[in-house]
Formats: sequence, structure tokens, C-alpha cells
Amino acid sequence: MASLRVLGVDPGLTRCGLGVVDVLPDRSATLVHVGVVRSDAGAPIEARLAIIAAGIRAVIRDHSPHVVAVERVFAQSNRHSVMGTAQASGVALLAAAEAGLAAATHTPSEVKAAITGYGSADKRQVQTMVARVLRLDELPKPADAADALALALCHAWRGSAPTAGAASHRTLTPAQRAWRQAERVRR
Amino acid sequence: MASLRVLGVDPGLTRCGLGVVDVLPDRSATLVHVGVVRSDAGAPIEARLAIIAAGIRAVIRDHSPHVVAVERVFAQSNRHSVMGTAQASGVALLAAAEAGLAAATHTPSEVKAAITGYGSADKRQVQTMVARVLRLDELPKPADAADALALALCHAWRGSAPTAGAASHRTLTPAQRAWRQAERVRR
Repeated sequence: MASLRVLGVDPGLTRCGLGVVDVLPDRSATLVHVGVVRSDAGAPIEARLAIIAAGIRAVIRDHSPHVVAVERVFAQSNRHSVMGTAQASGVALLAAAEAGLAAATHTPSEVKAAITGYGSADKRQVQTMVARVLRLDELPKPADAADALALALCHAWRGSAPTAGAASHRTLTPAQRAWRQAERVRR
Repeated sequence: MASLRVLGVDPGLTRCGLGVVDVLPDRSATLVHVGVVRSDAGAPIEARLAIIAAGIRAVIRDHSPHVVAVERVFAQSNRHSVMGTAQASGVALLAAAEAGLAAATHTPSEVKAAITGYGSADKRQVQTMVARVLRLDELPKPADAADALALALCHAWRGSAPTAGAASHRTLTPAQRAWRQAERVRR
């Protein structure tokens, strides 16, 4: 069976989570890579973004994902780091485009719903489910790494975000969507 | 006299303003380049960011600025495009770092104050002053291009943002600051 390899990115300047998974059309998944790119809070913003970009490009080069899924950042967020998070997400999306890869964004509640079945799940529930799906002995750490894996799984299971006129798409099972998405990416 | 060449970036996805000026220690300035990189609102976000990055890199390559000044984006902004603006600013800062250039950010009110003398100046007043300083026959258009030139002038005239322990820096005249900044960048 053809698997879909997804790089999930939990964007951030201090810690940017990166997780790569292989997902089969039957929803089963395997861990390929998980890690975190860190940059020093005292460094200039442009240097921090360059470190994040280099880390993402290295994972793309080493693991050749088919698609990159990035957490969608909202201005309404009350985290004071939200602008840095948005800048890091821009760099992640740019790295995808420059590697010739499709990219997608998913909201935190979409990720929670895809992984646990409900959008208001807490972080621990998401991490536990990620560990179970990937048959890991421990919860992935730090949380940013776990979030990146959850994003990657979410992307494969949801398929691409429904677009206008794609209502029928939503009637597919998650496995059918994953398959369709894999087909689309391969083309 | 040594001049400081500054690339100003007014970040945006639909229109990203780019302006390059040469500024002498006596505050006099010359237009080197002005333009706008546009990306189609219907294109995927990652493709739009790649277009913006390519446009910024081309200007850096063609005009070899010493430093890149980018407008600082605030989450409190009520523009619904604020996240895209933040992503574009991240890409601009990344392009600076990857070209080995220093970068700086300035807020809109810092730019207005540097150009017109007061932080609540309206856009037209800023554009008129930019045109006068650069001895342009017309106001630079579109507004994004004018804003990019204003950012570049602001950066040269303000010097770099004061850092902890740099209080004495603030007692310098704008010309002295421009000179000091030019010296610093050349080192």
C-alpha cells in the first residue's frame, strides 16, 4: 500500500516542533522522525528565523515528506509570542514551497478533533493518542514535538481542507480521504 | 562621505512594498529603487510567500543594501490580514539573514515620527515628506511602496533601536546616529 509521508510543524521561535509520519490508507501510522528546532530568545529575530528555516529544510532533505502541515496561527491568540509564531509559520510554509511541496494549515481544534474525536481535548489526551497510534513507549517530548506529530497525523486523516464545491469530499471516511490525498500529492 | 544603503520592506501578501535609499550622515537621501511585489490572493499561501521571498531576494541581489528595515506587525491590529502580514515579515527578515545582512523592525508610529516629526501623521503627510526628501516629482505609488521608502529613511535617521545600556546613543543628533549606524554596518 502507498503511504503518505507528512511533515507536521508546530511553529515557534523558541521551540519549533517537527514530526514526520508515514500514514497508510487504513489510517495506520509509523513514526519517521521527531524533533525540535530551538533558537535563543536573546538572538536577533532574523537570526532566529534563519535557524528555524535551516532546521525545517534539513528535515525535508533528510526525510522527503510528500506534504507539509503547519499549525494555523490566530491573531486572537492571547499569547504574547503570537507574532513570532506567525513569522515562524511563514518560514515553514516558504520552506515547503521552495522544496516543491504542497502545504496545508490546520487549527488546533481541528487537530484535537482529528486525533481524539473532540475539539476541546486537552494536550495530554492528544499526546496519549499520538503515542498510542504511533506505538511509542513514552509520550513524545517536548510538547511541541508531540503537537507536530499530531498535526501530521491530522493532515493525513483529514485529507486536505475542504474547499468550495468539495462537499462530497466530506462524506468520505478518513481512510478514503487519506488515500485521496495521497493520490493527489503523488500526481 | 560614506552613505548607508537601506532596504525598507512594508510587508504584505497582496502587495509587499520594497524601497531602497542611500542616506548620507547629513540626512540627505537618494532614491535607489522602489517597487512592489504582488501575489494573487487566490494562490496557496506557501506559493504567495515564495513569490514575496523571491522578490525581496532579487532586490537584495540587484541593489546590495547594507541593512534591511521591516515594519513591525502587531497582533492588536484589527486588520484581518494581520497574520499574512506577519508571515510576510518573517520571510523578509529571513531573506535579510540569509543574505548576511542585519535587520531591524520599526513600528508605524516610529516611522511617522522619524519622517514628519510626529507619530500620528497621516499617510499623505508621510508620502509628501518622503517625496520631498528624495526630490521626487510625484508621490511614490502605490502606498505600500511609499511606506517602504519611509521605513528605509526612518531606519537610517533613527539609527538602530536603542538597546539596554545605550542611553547615550539617544543624545546623538539624527545625523550622528545615521553616521554611527553606517560605521557599524560597514564593520
